[in-house]
Amino acid sequence: MQGLMQHWPLTVDKILDHARHWHGNREVVTRSVEGPMVTTTYAEIHERARRVSNALKSWGVGTGDRVATIAWNTGRHIEAWYGIMGIGAVCHTLNPRLFPEQLIYIINHAEDKVIFTDLTFVPLLEAILDKCPSVERVVVMTDEASMPQTKLPRAECYEHVLAENSAECDWGGFDENTACGLCYTSGTTGDPKGVLYSHRSNFLHTLITLQNDVMGASSRDTILAIVPMFHANAWGLAFSAPAVGARLIMPGARMDGAAIHELLETEKVTYSAAVPTVWQGLLQHLRQSGGQLTTLKKVLIGGSAVPAAMIRAFHDEFGVEVVQGWGMTETSPVGTISNLTPELAALPYEEQIPWRTKQGRPPIGIHLTLKDDEGKVLPQDGVAFGRLMVRGPTVAGSYFKGVGGQILDDEGYFDTGDVATIDPTGYMAITDRAKDVIKSGGEWISSIDIENIAVGHDKVALAAVIGVAHPKWDERPLLVLKLHEGVSGDKQEFLDFLQGKIAKWWMPDDVVFVDDIPLGATGKIDKKILRERFKDYRLPTA
Amino acid sequence: MQGLMQHWPLTVDKILDHARHWHGNREVVTRSVEGPMVTTTYAEIHERARRVSNALKSWGVGTGDRVATIAWNTGRHIEAWYGIMGIGAVCHTLNPRLFPEQLIYIINHAEDKVIFTDLTFVPLLEAILDKCPSVERVVVMTDEASMPQTKLPRAECYEHVLAENSAECDWGGFDENTACGLCYTSGTTGDPKGVLYSHRSNFLHTLITLQNDVMGASSRDTILAIVPMFHANAWGLAFSAPAVGARLIMPGARMDGAAIHELLETEKVTYSAAVPTVWQGLLQHLRQSGGQLTTLKKVLIGGSAVPAAMIRAFHDEFGVEVVQGWGMTETSPVGTISNLTPELAALPYEEQIPWRTKQGRPPIGIHLTLKDDEGKVLPQDGVAFGRLMVRGPTVAGSYFKGVGGQILDDEGYFDTGDVATIDPTGYMAITDRAKDVIKSGGEWISSIDIENIAVGHDKVALAAVIGVAHPKWDERPLLVLKLHEGVSGDKQEFLDFLQGKIAKWWMPDDVVFVDDIPLGATGKIDKKILRERFKDYRLPTA
Repeated sequence: MQGLMQHWPLTVDKILDHARHWHGNREVVTRSVEGPMVTTTYAEIHERARRVSNALKSWGVGTGDRVATIAWNTGRHIEAWYGIMGIGAVCHTLNPRLFPEQLIYIINHAEDKVIFTDLTFVPLLEAILDKCPSVERVVVMTDEASMPQTKLPRAECYEHVLAENSAECDWGGFDENTACGLCYTSGTTGDPKGVLYSHRSNFLHTLITLQNDVMGASSRDTILAIVPMFHANAWGLAFSAPAVGARLIMPGARMDGAAIHELLETEKVTYSAAVPTVWQGLLQHLRQSGGQLTTLKKVLIGGSAVPAAMIRAFHDEFGVEVVQGWGMTETSPVGTISNLTPELAALPYEEQIPWRTKQGRPPIGIHLTLKDDEGKVLPQDGVAFGRLMVRGPTVAGSYFKGVGGQILDDEGYFDTGDVATIDPTGYMAITDRAKDVIKSGGEWISSIDIENIAVGHDKVALAAVIGVAHPKWDERPLLVLKLHEGVSGDKQEFLDFLQGKIAKWWMPDDVVFVDDIPLGATGKIDKKILRERFKDYRLPTA
Repeated sequence: MQGLMQHWPLTVDKILDHARHWHGNREVVTRSVEGPMVTTTYAEIHERARRVSNALKSWGVGTGDRVATIAWNTGRHIEAWYGIMGIGAVCHTLNPRLFPEQLIYIINHAEDKVIFTDLTFVPLLEAILDKCPSVERVVVMTDEASMPQTKLPRAECYEHVLAENSAECDWGGFDENTACGLCYTSGTTGDPKGVLYSHRSNFLHTLITLQNDVMGASSRDTILAIVPMFHANAWGLAFSAPAVGARLIMPGARMDGAAIHELLETEKVTYSAAVPTVWQGLLQHLRQSGGQLTTLKKVLIGGSAVPAAMIRAFHDEFGVEVVQGWGMTETSPVGTISNLTPELAALPYEEQIPWRTKQGRPPIGIHLTLKDDEGKVLPQDGVAFGRLMVRGPTVAGSYFKGVGGQILDDEGYFDTGDVATIDPTGYMAITDRAKDVIKSGGEWISSIDIENIAVGHDKVALAAVIGVAHPKWDERPLLVLKLHEGVSGDKQEFLDFLQGKIAKWWMPDDVVFVDDIPLGATGKIDKKILRERFKDYRLPTA
């Protein structure tokens, strides 16, 4: 027997419709790519997004067609985003930090028909688009006065296009499982893989993140969306802020400490979200400038592990609460959040730190489990570490065009590729990437745990631990160190530094010093290259 | 093109699964019907609910079968609720305050196979069940020691049933549009009509209410769920509290001021929800006893209009924020909420009152509009009042078994039967029930507006305004007054009291004094009876 409630497909056009109708005057403030601050409203964004839709329709873009954006967080980017999605086309956010060859691969794989770009990325597109035959048109998101001379074929000026198109457009009317967004994983192994979000998954992700114990945005918040829309959908902020009518501040191209601080203060921001490196820049700036944070209450930090020192600095020096989140492109992205249970919240602050540095607990709609290599579920005792597996309506079921084949296990879980523990209070902590775990005599050694300790040594600039072949143990850990400029050291002092801080059998079998440690497009250490470089390294213990 | 996210039907069994796994030790505390306080946890409730499922299966209850409850808010009621829903049966909450004939009608219409009852309602069921042939079994929710002698055929003792059944049971596995809950409207006009919720609508309602700007429950909250589960699903609390792992306090049969105050204080409640009469009882008790509210932060009040005096009393005397909600059985029930926009929140408290006394704004997922009798959309100017129409995935699309026929208009809106205004800031205010509006010369007069003013006169105990036939104006208002015990007055003094407070043409054409004003099962004035009584009344102006 079916229930008898209204048929109301969960499509994201309804989010901006809601914002226009019930929060129409709420501001969206952008530090524009051209320079000046630009203030608009949800009502204006709604109107302009419909002009985008009509332009796309006039160019023959329809349901299921991919339309890319390569752009900073701006009001115009939100307009393009909803203009694309509202007519059932797929908004494909391109990460401009990728290497040109990766961008070419992704654009061709997605078969993008139109690309919306900021001025910043016109030269980048000029350099690659002759290798991307699907792209019929590029829309430069600027006004006519700022429109550059470009050799891009069929380049359109955004403001000119908007002026030429009507604001009357019917949105929605399609099934909620219709594709809505496309985002490729950075792909440290193999080719990039596309996650194809549906309207339903994005709408549900919005509701999930709006819970008090997740991101909990309110119409009384002013949110600075630092995390880019091309980085896992800005953690959903381009949906959740309009859904509740939160005032939204978009930082455009400038994410240095001084620029962020200026926005936080002048726009009276209450909530923000970004990766640790951005906050590191802000904290450095504040210490140098003596600046304060007078309105900011809470920051969500994710993308990589948040150091305890950062949590303490925000709390002790600036009275700002840090909440850590974990997620990935494949999880829309919110997977867990480190909001405190009542028992932990009642502890003295310093005693909360061990939980605040974990990645947190899943909200309703996400289920996590740990499995070993044989698919056996591991205990949630905070000690056993295994593959982190995740299920839910906002989690990828397969990749675009079937790349990677079947990606769910028999029980429908997606393998995150992370290795983690979950403690008895339900807090998950990422221990390592599965491919970076060192398998020594059938037991697992976490490369990240060792790196995190090693990097605490005064002389160390960067530390990486990789597994190297060993005749007896299969693999043993090798510690690769880049020391600070002009500093030298000997192997033993770094091994001594680790002594007592890790299990005896986790001790690296050797230490090597390098001039540089390779970093990937997202700023993480590229261990694939390191492993390749040291694949024939002979350990002294071998 | 379809998105490629995981298939994960929104079924409510997953809510209790989540609570068990991630908030398993969180307490559910009940003032039991037998007397003592009983503490259980979400993990225990989950286990016991599965025993309920197995009992139902052993009795031949399957997907789509209706299983009723007639019960107070208790931990056992939650177990029965999930035990029924988890296997795809339909949980039909019976309102024990209905007249016996209404209960018989509803049970027969629903064709309930099993009824779970509290001890309180055994005599009531004994009196009516011989007229309800579909009911095969009654489960008395008590332990064996407290099991009464009863002439009910096939009466089962709940704890005995649980002990006999296994806790192993697979839940879910059905379509998210499967029927999940059934609740009949009290039906002041015509027969009661059944609203048939789906798993999807209840799951989405849960997420919608968990937003910060709606009910915003957190795992750090202790929630006293006063509003009954038979009254529009306890406004969703039996879903939303476990979904976030909030500690849940269930008041059982006692809802007097002293009992509620005791629970609020001993259980350290932070949030609660109930109708105005409950809060009136609490405030009276607090004033008489000198009691304080030391942990309560916020109360949600709905079901009927919240007087400004109640909002002020909570704020000024006890430091508790009142949030008003509006909804109905047909809206799951949350429709609007009077949380303040940032502009209003910035006003001095006294200036916020005009908005706090309105019913509020809709969250994402609910859309409201005002239409006149011809279906024309009216302006949201705070002045025009029209039929309040509502759309969304948590709103009824039709009634059980097609009663009432097509209930949506051409645009898919459900007519709430309320007449309302919506002001430019989006705040909806109920003006009247559509059937109580007085249509005078083609214009509408709000009976409630006049009543609210009249009841402010010192001598007035109850006031009702009804339309009476008039040869020239079709209808004109008649003011029906019940004065306080031992008090008398003349018509003119009450008309003088209204003078200047309402439009001249709204002034009642006459005043009549009565010894009693009839109230319906939900405590509201029964205007149908009043209109019948005065249908031949000749106005002096006629």
